[in-house]
Amino acid sequence: MPRILALNPGSNSLKFDLVDASPDQKIASEGRKLLTGTVDDIGKQTKLIVQQDGKTIAEQEGDFKDFSAATERVVDFFQSHTEIQNWKDLDQAAVRVVHGGDTFQKAERYTREIREEIERREEQAPLHNANSLKIIDVLQRKSPDLPVAVTFDTAFHHTIPEHAWRYPIAREVADSLGIRKFGFHGLSHRYMLEQYAHLNNKQPEDISIVTLHLESGSSACAIQNGKSIDTSMGFTPLEGLMMGTRCGSIDTAILPYLAEKQKISPEDALKILEKKSGLLGISGVSLDTRILRKRDDAASKLAIQMFGYRVRHFVGAYLAILGEAEAVVFGGGIGENTPEVRTEVTEGLRGWGIAIDQKKNEITCAGDTHIHNRYSTLGAWVIHVEEGMQLAHECVRIS
Amino acid sequence: MPRILALNPGSNSLKFDLVDASPDQKIASEGRKLLTGTVDDIGKQTKLIVQQDGKTIAEQEGDFKDFSAATERVVDFFQSHTEIQNWKDLDQAAVRVVHGGDTFQKAERYTREIREEIERREEQAPLHNANSLKIIDVLQRKSPDLPVAVTFDTAFHHTIPEHAWRYPIAREVADSLGIRKFGFHGLSHRYMLEQYAHLNNKQPEDISIVTLHLESGSSACAIQNGKSIDTSMGFTPLEGLMMGTRCGSIDTAILPYLAEKQKISPEDALKILEKKSGLLGISGVSLDTRILRKRDDAASKLAIQMFGYRVRHFVGAYLAILGEAEAVVFGGGIGENTPEVRTEVTEGLRGWGIAIDQKKNEITCAGDTHIHNRYSTLGAWVIHVEEGMQLAHECVRIS
Repeated sequence: MPRILALNPGSNSLKFDLVDASPDQKIASEGRKLLTGTVDDIGKQTKLIVQQDGKTIAEQEGDFKDFSAATERVVDFFQSHTEIQNWKDLDQAAVRVVHGGDTFQKAERYTREIREEIERREEQAPLHNANSLKIIDVLQRKSPDLPVAVTFDTAFHHTIPEHAWRYPIAREVADSLGIRKFGFHGLSHRYMLEQYAHLNNKQPEDISIVTLHLESGSSACAIQNGKSIDTSMGFTPLEGLMMGTRCGSIDTAILPYLAEKQKISPEDALKILEKKSGLLGISGVSLDTRILRKRDDAASKLAIQMFGYRVRHFVGAYLAILGEAEAVVFGGGIGENTPEVRTEVTEGLRGWGIAIDQKKNEITCAGDTHIHNRYSTLGAWVIHVEEGMQLAHECVRIS
Repeated sequence: MPRILALNPGSNSLKFDLVDASPDQKIASEGRKLLTGTVDDIGKQTKLIVQQDGKTIAEQEGDFKDFSAATERVVDFFQSHTEIQNWKDLDQAAVRVVHGGDTFQKAERYTREIREEIERREEQAPLHNANSLKIIDVLQRKSPDLPVAVTFDTAFHHTIPEHAWRYPIAREVADSLGIRKFGFHGLSHRYMLEQYAHLNNKQPEDISIVTLHLESGSSACAIQNGKSIDTSMGFTPLEGLMMGTRCGSIDTAILPYLAEKQKISPEDALKILEKKSGLLGISGVSLDTRILRKRDDAASKLAIQMFGYRVRHFVGAYLAILGEAEAVVFGGGIGENTPEVRTEVTEGLRGWGIAIDQKKNEITCAGDTHIHNRYSTLGAWVIHVEEGMQLAHECVRIS
């Protein structure tokens, strides 16, 4: 089986997984995860942590000023720890790219032409793709012979129909500037779909569900017969659900009002909505629901309630958009670890026939399991999303 | 019964109704509408039209440059047509004010203090309230003894709980600037609620429904036990559903992107979203669904499809937010006259047990009637909204 180093850059962290995956495997979870690691809080004094089977096998402090430095350290780690992984035996690197626009519908072998297209998207949506390119540059410099594949968080959403991807804004303006819904978190939504199908002995193309990727970045996806037909993130990852520090969908007229009243630029107003809002902005304490749910203050409770309320809104909306669906799937750190959010959401779906096993809901974290009871006509599942394995799964087929 | 002149300013039109209403009546439709009139396209060369029982009894051309001029002409009309209505016999004028903020929870007798509060809201949300004040100024100048009452489109939404009215944006910024969800179209949502209760022999406080005010300005409302618990318009009337020329909810990051790329101010970018988007912006033809639904071009069809799709999203969301509900109510010009929109919405609610009488749906316009069939477990109704009668109903009780 090909051995793949999956590199998954977030807004300020780099996750990596060493995965054995076969080009013949049907779903990501058929692969084997050998190692997992992270470099968190890139830009600050931070740590590289490597884990095997849940145990930390290496921990290195360092000053990872950017994604280039972090990637160098990851490669150095493997090259100096041949007992863990002989770098020369690695078959492929697989790198997640956030924004593939409407160009990419699947994973691609990395080439000069692909790079140019990724850079073009960078101009349209600054900062999304630059970190992925930094990672690839380091890989190519340090290990020129290692094949690199890229996969796009937007690709899964290329099936969204025009009435959903088009915004109801002046057509000629939107089209000339390329303003449309793209959607993100495609790796995660696809993982949940395929894993759900696998757990239920079905084919993905027979599945209609709502998937929820709930983390510091959050999105919902309406999947009909195995295809994304709508998703809550849009032109950028600001839209949709409430998130760790992002506000999600609000009245757009708030932004110019905020800029004018605070005497700041529209860009700085946008930064308030992106960096100082969401769970952090409401609680004033943290963006981490594991911390917030243990606190007793009204602001922390309100933050979790608002988060769940907005997920409930989108799940109801997407069930109506699907017309018929068999389950709601909770994934991502918040989806897996926050029973309060799952309760808030499923409370609203009694009209859809959902019935929850409350005990199971309260103890479940890091699925994969259902939390509905035997009387439920709409399923509720918790699935532990393995984005690194999905990355390897999507890329191994094109190497 | 007191005779009331109800004055209902829109963004560029003034509607007025002469209504007999009793302080003891329970719902607006118990009143009697004697006359109805409009001045459309204020600011352009336009017409005053007065109708009685559906027949035009007067039509006057004129140059109504603003709401003051339009109101003067309305008063002049009555004062010079005493055979229609002796102005001196009028008991009250009732004026709709869009924005009562979080101050007003019900109709009020117009006083100097009330005026100051309305003006204060004007500063917060420019242009919403100015037209109502112009109307009142003319009334007081031309008829100083006529009592004037005001009622607020935001008032019905004062029951929305904090987790719904608060935006997930940095708390101290939002609170210092008074940024929150207010909601609008309260007169219309309340009319639909009370009329629905009346038609079903129930009390409003026992009713949980989703009401839809679909017109050139559109909004949805989740009503639980007779109280608004969420609504799709927000801090301003831009948020929520797609409208005649407004985009509704979009990715807020689009606005600064649009401003930067087009080299225009954020205010001008906002104008594109408010004035050149929605049904007009997508069809390129008209904001009137009566025109669009008769056309065969792809853009007109897409405009109606997108409109219906976004209503479907919010109805699904609000049913989930309610948890339990007994009906969806379509009102407003588009809600009453566009079976395609009702089909698109109700198609999504099969999971909620809705079953539509398609023949009835296709022929129904200007309700009040249900369009579900006998097997439906969730009702679907069309209700012809009489905002003027609601205005009289809410104001007669405080005169």
